[in-house]
Amino acid sequence: MSFAKLDELGKRLEAIEHAQAMLSVDEAVQMPSGGGEKRAEAMAMLAGMYHELATAPQIADWIGAATDEALDEMQQAALREFQRVYTNMTCLSADFVRKQVGARVRSEQLWRELRPAGDWSGFLPAFEGVVATARKEAQLRSVALQLDPYDAMIEQYDPGNRTADIAPVFAELKAFLKDFVPHAIARQREKLAARPLKPLNAPFPIEKQKALGLAIMEALGFDFEHGRLDISHHPFCGGVPTDVRMTTRYVTSDFLTALMGILHETGHGLYEQGLPKRWSHWPLGKARGMAIHESQSLFVEKQIARSPEFWEWAMPHVREHLGEDAIAGWELEDVLAHVHWIERGLIRVDADEATYPLHVILRFEIEKDLIEDKLAPKDVPEVWDAKMNEYLGLSTIDNPKDGPMQDVHWPSGAFGYFPSYTLGAMIAAQQWAALQQAQPNVREDMRSGRFVGLNDWRREHIWSQASRWSTPELLERATGEKLNAKHFAEHLRQRYLA
Amino acid sequence: MSFAKLDELGKRLEAIEHAQAMLSVDEAVQMPSGGGEKRAEAMAMLAGMYHELATAPQIADWIGAATDEALDEMQQAALREFQRVYTNMTCLSADFVRKQVGARVRSEQLWRELRPAGDWSGFLPAFEGVVATARKEAQLRSVALQLDPYDAMIEQYDPGNRTADIAPVFAELKAFLKDFVPHAIARQREKLAARPLKPLNAPFPIEKQKALGLAIMEALGFDFEHGRLDISHHPFCGGVPTDVRMTTRYVTSDFLTALMGILHETGHGLYEQGLPKRWSHWPLGKARGMAIHESQSLFVEKQIARSPEFWEWAMPHVREHLGEDAIAGWELEDVLAHVHWIERGLIRVDADEATYPLHVILRFEIEKDLIEDKLAPKDVPEVWDAKMNEYLGLSTIDNPKDGPMQDVHWPSGAFGYFPSYTLGAMIAAQQWAALQQAQPNVREDMRSGRFVGLNDWRREHIWSQASRWSTPELLERATGEKLNAKHFAEHLRQRYLA
Repeated sequence: MSFAKLDELGKRLEAIEHAQAMLSVDEAVQMPSGGGEKRAEAMAMLAGMYHELATAPQIADWIGAATDEALDEMQQAALREFQRVYTNMTCLSADFVRKQVGARVRSEQLWRELRPAGDWSGFLPAFEGVVATARKEAQLRSVALQLDPYDAMIEQYDPGNRTADIAPVFAELKAFLKDFVPHAIARQREKLAARPLKPLNAPFPIEKQKALGLAIMEALGFDFEHGRLDISHHPFCGGVPTDVRMTTRYVTSDFLTALMGILHETGHGLYEQGLPKRWSHWPLGKARGMAIHESQSLFVEKQIARSPEFWEWAMPHVREHLGEDAIAGWELEDVLAHVHWIERGLIRVDADEATYPLHVILRFEIEKDLIEDKLAPKDVPEVWDAKMNEYLGLSTIDNPKDGPMQDVHWPSGAFGYFPSYTLGAMIAAQQWAALQQAQPNVREDMRSGRFVGLNDWRREHIWSQASRWSTPELLERATGEKLNAKHFAEHLRQRYLA
Repeated sequence: MSFAKLDELGKRLEAIEHAQAMLSVDEAVQMPSGGGEKRAEAMAMLAGMYHELATAPQIADWIGAATDEALDEMQQAALREFQRVYTNMTCLSADFVRKQVGARVRSEQLWRELRPAGDWSGFLPAFEGVVATARKEAQLRSVALQLDPYDAMIEQYDPGNRTADIAPVFAELKAFLKDFVPHAIARQREKLAARPLKPLNAPFPIEKQKALGLAIMEALGFDFEHGRLDISHHPFCGGVPTDVRMTTRYVTSDFLTALMGILHETGHGLYEQGLPKRWSHWPLGKARGMAIHESQSLFVEKQIARSPEFWEWAMPHVREHLGEDAIAGWELEDVLAHVHWIERGLIRVDADEATYPLHVILRFEIEKDLIEDKLAPKDVPEVWDAKMNEYLGLSTIDNPKDGPMQDVHWPSGAFGYFPSYTLGAMIAAQQWAALQQAQPNVREDMRSGRFVGLNDWRREHIWSQASRWSTPELLERATGEKLNAKHFAEHLRQRYLA
């Protein structure tokens, strides 16, 4: 039985993935600094062993032979994902990957060194090297997958997503946002004139913030039998579906930063915990991809946890855990003024939900042209500046540090990843619209802290589906329509202009 | 180069060992209960992959061919250890191991179930199965290693140790202790009449106990750049040499339990941290074995941390971290009365350093006869009771729970392991005697908290030697003589009868 061989391979790979995931968590949460060198060696060796196992030539034979075996529907779906993953992993030669890793490591190291001073010209040669390698990678993937080069890059992160589908939606969204952001900011100014922003009554002891975070995670459905919350420098959601490890980072001057971070990661965690257990060792059983994953975290962070109904329910919990003085005299509008803050800025990771997509669309447009050889790496700062001026009215021409040097993605060779962030935001809004059709009382539910129905809908339509469908198929099956920017636009209009 | 292939194999195995070690630590320290099932699957799969890699038939060819290669002295030593480990791992057939694991798992499960009620007759059939399998294992190892069956079992834990060398030393020690224990207890009674035992002034908050433990670990030379201290249900020392993970367990009613536990594990940790980094991926670079490992933990716990000089230095630290009231009005003698407490008891793990070896020698004598087919499993309770009566004046004939059912070792199939505990205690005392010859001021050093010289001696003679020599060779090179019970006897006499 060739399928049985794939099944056994899946179990081996799952064990290595388990080790890799938990070693990464340990490194961020527990490991003393001196353990880093050996840990890096062990991780590199495990990655090599994983790659050897996952790309062995006989796997192609097993996949071929399994096609003729009597498989049930799920096994057939599993076989398609085995095939897809195998093709994506084997379309680059070992020799190419070795060179690519070298170029990426050098470029990322140089970027870390030169970024603080914004030394673009010092960084440019390394960046040119990375872009050249990425173009070559896109070509190789393009041939293997029969896709356009940039689509072949996206395919790694969001299977089935195509530039031809995304680009018009992004164009529509961009047009909307260029108009929307100034209006929303003007509206914010009016509101503030009537009701000044109340400062947070710091300090907020970490232990109390943690208790608040745990209480709200639990209410949202996070299963602490199969997961936990720790502290790390950069918050993340890691681990494995049966043991989800979330982290956050607390500052005593502000409880909202950690709390909103916890809620975002809880969205990732709920998705992982909701994946079907019985397929966990098949590629079919993994989360679908970056855009869908981001849609789950943003759904919790934006659709749920920045809504007025959520805060009606949550404010008493804040007072219970942080003390009556924490937000003394605040009304709902005072919290919302904080969690709905909009501001034009240079830095993507600091951006709010209204301006964030413009940062992403700018990158999407630039990286697409870079991969398609329509833009030279040396011209990126100028194009970046022009787009920033057009989209957000800000200039970066004398400030590459806060322009094209701000993100690690390109220096580390990740092209095709950026769109996932904004696709996730749009998908989250589109899911909310579908959910509200199915459960008209969902806002009332949130007001009284009932998140079960809302999770049930996502479990049925997203989590339990794992990698059964391509990204756009999954979206269409869940919401009844293709990617549609109007839901996200409507979400913003209701929240910021109503 | 065949040696290069072994070298590469060592790196792969080291990466899997790294993952196994850290996943075990995580399981005990961090993992939520629901993560256990998948963790067990991942661990079993990693163990299988490790075994496959480590026992591949071509390794025998590499070892054979490497013998003819131009190797430096260390590579030659490494090759001998590669050979030794390979022989020990391959002398049991996969089929035998599978059956053995089955018998062990059933027997251990049954033991856990029946032990609370002390149901020996219910347990006996499973125990007979485990003994039969262990006899078979000993036969297979005996043939492969050209050793007597019981020696072949010991060889797994302490390479080079032979019953012919150990048995006379144990006999001498037994004779000494049967006489010594009553005298020491009588002496203790006299002292208590003159100076009653002072109770500990509990509670001791866990955070304060932890700070005390960390301060003392640091003073003893534990490197927190390459290790840390956490909490787990059963204290252990795990991790890898570059990242040693120690755990303890605190009770608020008594600070000495956790502190002495921490000191014991610190002894293990210092050994691991002191192993030579450049051989870490060869068997040559690992700790020598159980007896030597135990000698390092007992050296810290008994030779150092139960000495009057240590407590002269440590008492101010206890007061600093636990508060002046913690041991209000105590003098040195009051602490020593606690840490030198002797008492006859049924339970090995609760025993003090004077009675502990009698528990071990009893087990050594019984398990040797079991393996050599001179004793039937059904007769163990009677023999146990007779020996307990003879050695410690206690009976277990109606109490198998606190007799032969008290330890997990035999139910889980580990025969040949028990001697290591008492060999470790004797080796620790013998090392102390040699150290004191080399550094006559070592007791003065301890009195002022200087542990550097004492660690230097152990680093040079034990830690840096890793697995370069067999257990008895290592001991003789370090101390200038073969295993000699008189040092341990002298240690006890000085401490308890002086």
